[in-house]
Amino acid sequence: MADLKFSISGENVNPTKFVAKSRQFTLTIDDPEGLGGTDEGANPVEFLLAAYAGCLNVMGHIVARELGIQLKSIRIEAEGDLNPAKVFGQPTTDRPGYKEIRVNIFPEADTNEETLARWLEIIESRCPVNDNLINPTPVKIGLKIPAEKAA
Amino acid sequence: MADLKFSISGENVNPTKFVAKSRQFTLTIDDPEGLGGTDEGANPVEFLLAAYAGCLNVMGHIVARELGIQLKSIRIEAEGDLNPAKVFGQPTTDRPGYKEIRVNIFPEADTNEETLARWLEIIESRCPVNDNLINPTPVKIGLKIPAEKAA
Repeated sequence: MADLKFSISGENVNPTKFVAKSRQFTLTIDDPEGLGGTDEGANPVEFLLAAYAGCLNVMGHIVARELGIQLKSIRIEAEGDLNPAKVFGQPTTDRPGYKEIRVNIFPEADTNEETLARWLEIIESRCPVNDNLINPTPVKIGLKIPAEKAA
Repeated sequence: MADLKFSISGENVNPTKFVAKSRQFTLTIDDPEGLGGTDEGANPVEFLLAAYAGCLNVMGHIVARELGIQLKSIRIEAEGDLNPAKVFGQPTTDRPGYKEIRVNIFPEADTNEETLARWLEIIESRCPVNDNLINPTPVKIGLKIPAEKAA
């Protein structure tokens, strides 16, 4: 299959609130007041968990169809811990991002545990967001400044 | 600083549409019709880009304050390519997730290019979502099934 390109673009409204457009959709990201934000949206690391859960859900349904599992619904809980020290420039040996992400998947399906364990194994091996989290993902960040500033 | 815990939980509405709650916020994730979805929300890998851009924005403002940069605004564009073959169970040697993510940051700031290059370097080293993408992140996925199915 040919590669697909996905994209978003956005601007900040205040130092923490960022409004991104992805096709016809508007995503508002902010930080809670306790982290210096204006709390008008879920925060970036909550968006990351939502991306992960949403991806596991789609894969869950695709793989269920392949295995002939009647999947009535999926509930997913996701959480992670991070030390905000690096974000705020405090000394730490901890990484800035999640140290670990824990997910619980509650499928309602007419099949047995063994089949569901196989189902989950396949989901994990093929979920794009899972792959981008558990394996290194190359990123390129470009700085675009007006010509007069770059002079 | 003490670790912070972030979490989301949600359920699917149809095979692709997943509605997640994160504190008081509702995040609706779906897939476009071309990928078999009902197109009622940005899709999981678009959420991932939004998480990344939102995180770079917050870090941009924190680091600007530290460096004494007057940062008026930031615009961010993010995109990535992935081969959907693995998602749909087609043969491929490609990874399921983004092969590369490209970001362009357009800061409007009253400073020079050298200072902005240093600014960006610090942002990259301290941004949680950047860390979780470029480095491996441990995940634990638990399968929770009702007792009668597990018997």
